[in-house]
Amino acid sequence: MSSVKVPKLVGVTVKKSEDFSEWYNQVVLKAELADYSPVHGFMVIRPHGMMLWEGITAFLDARIKARGVENAYFPLLIPESFFKNEQAHAEGFAPEVAWLEKEEKSEERLAIRPTSETIMYDMYSKWIRSHRDLPLRVNQWANVVRWEIKMTKLFLRTREFLWQEGHCVYATHEEELEETLAFLHEYEKVYHDLLAIPVIAGKKTLAEKFAGSNDTFTLEAWMPDGKALQGCTSHDLGQNFSKAFNITFTGEDEKIHHPWQNSWGLSTRVIGAMIMVHSDDKGLVLPPRLARNKVVIVPIIFADSKDTVLAAAKKIANELKSFGARVDDRDTYSAGWKFNEWELKGIPLRIELGPRDVGQNQCVLVRRDTGEKKIVSLAGIEKVVEHELEAMHHALFAKAKKHLDDSLITVQTMKEFESALENRKIIRMLFCGTPACEAEIKQKTTATTRCIPLNEKPVKGGVCVQCGKEASLHTLFSKGY
Amino acid sequence: MSSVKVPKLVGVTVKKSEDFSEWYNQVVLKAELADYSPVHGFMVIRPHGMMLWEGITAFLDARIKARGVENAYFPLLIPESFFKNEQAHAEGFAPEVAWLEKEEKSEERLAIRPTSETIMYDMYSKWIRSHRDLPLRVNQWANVVRWEIKMTKLFLRTREFLWQEGHCVYATHEEELEETLAFLHEYEKVYHDLLAIPVIAGKKTLAEKFAGSNDTFTLEAWMPDGKALQGCTSHDLGQNFSKAFNITFTGEDEKIHHPWQNSWGLSTRVIGAMIMVHSDDKGLVLPPRLARNKVVIVPIIFADSKDTVLAAAKKIANELKSFGARVDDRDTYSAGWKFNEWELKGIPLRIELGPRDVGQNQCVLVRRDTGEKKIVSLAGIEKVVEHELEAMHHALFAKAKKHLDDSLITVQTMKEFESALENRKIIRMLFCGTPACEAEIKQKTTATTRCIPLNEKPVKGGVCVQCGKEASLHTLFSKGY
Repeated sequence: MSSVKVPKLVGVTVKKSEDFSEWYNQVVLKAELADYSPVHGFMVIRPHGMMLWEGITAFLDARIKARGVENAYFPLLIPESFFKNEQAHAEGFAPEVAWLEKEEKSEERLAIRPTSETIMYDMYSKWIRSHRDLPLRVNQWANVVRWEIKMTKLFLRTREFLWQEGHCVYATHEEELEETLAFLHEYEKVYHDLLAIPVIAGKKTLAEKFAGSNDTFTLEAWMPDGKALQGCTSHDLGQNFSKAFNITFTGEDEKIHHPWQNSWGLSTRVIGAMIMVHSDDKGLVLPPRLARNKVVIVPIIFADSKDTVLAAAKKIANELKSFGARVDDRDTYSAGWKFNEWELKGIPLRIELGPRDVGQNQCVLVRRDTGEKKIVSLAGIEKVVEHELEAMHHALFAKAKKHLDDSLITVQTMKEFESALENRKIIRMLFCGTPACEAEIKQKTTATTRCIPLNEKPVKGGVCVQCGKEASLHTLFSKGY
Repeated sequence: MSSVKVPKLVGVTVKKSEDFSEWYNQVVLKAELADYSPVHGFMVIRPHGMMLWEGITAFLDARIKARGVENAYFPLLIPESFFKNEQAHAEGFAPEVAWLEKEEKSEERLAIRPTSETIMYDMYSKWIRSHRDLPLRVNQWANVVRWEIKMTKLFLRTREFLWQEGHCVYATHEEELEETLAFLHEYEKVYHDLLAIPVIAGKKTLAEKFAGSNDTFTLEAWMPDGKALQGCTSHDLGQNFSKAFNITFTGEDEKIHHPWQNSWGLSTRVIGAMIMVHSDDKGLVLPPRLARNKVVIVPIIFADSKDTVLAAAKKIANELKSFGARVDDRDTYSAGWKFNEWELKGIPLRIELGPRDVGQNQCVLVRRDTGEKKIVSLAGIEKVVEHELEAMHHALFAKAKKHLDDSLITVQTMKEFESALENRKIIRMLFCGTPACEAEIKQKTTATTRCIPLNEKPVKGGVCVQCGKEASLHTLFSKGY
């Protein structure tokens, strides 16, 4: 061991249950997922965080490619005039746009993209001519800038974030709507199958939908502090943009038509949701299917058995290569230090291996989520690890699902609404859907609508709990991120 | 077939040998690789072009990860003061920087990154404390903006481009320099092994090196129009930035040191080089290892044998799945139309399959680079395709290598220099290496230095062909992109 003093590892110093916000910040910073940038409102995604985004993009990219979507890349800068083509869209983004200095007065002002509908659809209007060019399914992975004024929250609220934005064009509304929901379903797979986070699929209300869309679909995830997080969106744009940007095609009927469009996006916010839902007082807990390095092997080193133990550790790592297993053989840190570090960084499984273990052809397997320790034979270790990782995935999902289910409350009166909100619940109630009524609820209670769940059936003769007017659909309300 | 008229496919209408620049533009636009954006100087990378960038990034990303490099993401915007920390660097980029409008007078001006040294190294100064934190190997895949004033050339000269920038930090100069060259070697693999483009590895002269570096290493590729293209760079930054950004570490000797740094980048320019080197009068020619869809199967359809031929085509596609083979079964286009389209788009191999072929268990295989047709048995087609693709890779490389070798001329006088330049050659000559002498040559001839090839051996007692002063190394000159 080196003669230089090893600094003490400072873990997370507050409890998740006591100061959720500070706990979150500490997990992000101390697990080295991200850091504040010297430019106010911007974040640096560090390698341990970027690895997560790479895992998410690889999973989603393969799935959307299988649906015939192709990636492209459109310019970072958007001319001011483009924002004016679709009025609702323009107003939706106006306060958040960052503009470039002009070099000459005669030049048009240019904005950094807050989203790319306008610059993409201007090109589409040149590329699309015939029904043969449809459907056109294009996606881009990109950075976008929205000039948030609220306090920065790493991954959740920053002035720049990474995302994908899919923008597809179809000859018919039926086809467009079907795929708008199909892409929402792909996002559901990201949450359920990769991140072990349960979500509620629904439609946004008029007040909360994307400016310029006919309908916005969403997945809402439920956070441990009793707030919902919008996990992605998929917009039915109708013909709003194809009319505004003059996109037309000659149909099989030899007539000119405006096509139908959708757009759908998922951003680095998803990493924030993942941290909040699964992590604990010891730091990050990575859902095993997402973790690139699912197993860390920590050899317990004594001078007289060092070579034997290290050799055995490397042999295990090799057998567990498909799980990205690695041996932490740094001799400048103690085993205890390493245990704490990998717990802080969320590695799903730890294997401890000492000289006695090697003698008995066994190891100690420790699960990150439960802390449970098992003595496991090295014969057949691969099967055991595979089993434990899957069990951990399902345990994380089940725990989050229980919290979600336990939090969902149907109310009949605004008094019940207020008391449920105070108890940090998701409130399900009959609601008329009008923006005015929604604004009143928000003003009274601070709660906003999450969505109208897709599995809700219309209620005949129902009335809005708030205003008493006709209401056929149960809508979810809560505080939100 | 649909009753609507199929538009005529308009291929490339000028010859590569007659108007190289116009030929290049047409290939890029008509093969649908990229398009001009409505914002002056910016480009749209279309799906067929993005697929190429994805192929390049996948190849390179895996190789640099294997070298211990981790990806991260740093902010798009850089504070003005950061540009001033490293004087040479600041001056190098000053004319090309795009600035944001300030909201308030008190705010600091922000630039869109032209490159990320400064914003990354400011963070490094916080993250690096001890020799244990070194080496730190970080890369990012990102967009950058440099406000070019020269005419836009898709992929080659645009105000925004995509690239990767690796930024590593080491305890010793030896280690740093070793890896600076190792990353250059990885780029060489991209050119040689993936893109079938020969390159010359060398060191830039004082006048041409990256502002802020001690030395810049480059790969120079040779274009058919007698100009060189800088294919990437890898910079030995020495301690210049670690001093400017106050990056320090406590060494094993318990003393404080400034670490050593390199940075290295490869951009979407590489796609421009690939197009210029391999493509021809019929359009794009894709190097087979890069092409995602290496084989297209065009069934020759007659009403009475349609089902048989389509079924056989699908069977072949399935056998050739690992080559991304696909059947072009669109019934709105004729076979001839499809031949032309896939030639224009550069697919390496075409399989033509008619009813007689199916009967005889054979097909016609056409190679994109040579146009050569072979009748091939369907039994064992996979092996034949694999062989042809590899043969095509080597043929493309050999052809480009011959052009490069044939173009390299060693000169002893400036008269020979000028005549060689007129004949579109790469000129190799003894050169003193001083910026003043280089400027004089440029002013006289328009030629600039490409590099001092790494395999050049110092010549004892040599003199500079231009100024007559001492010169020990042969240096390459030519026109450049």
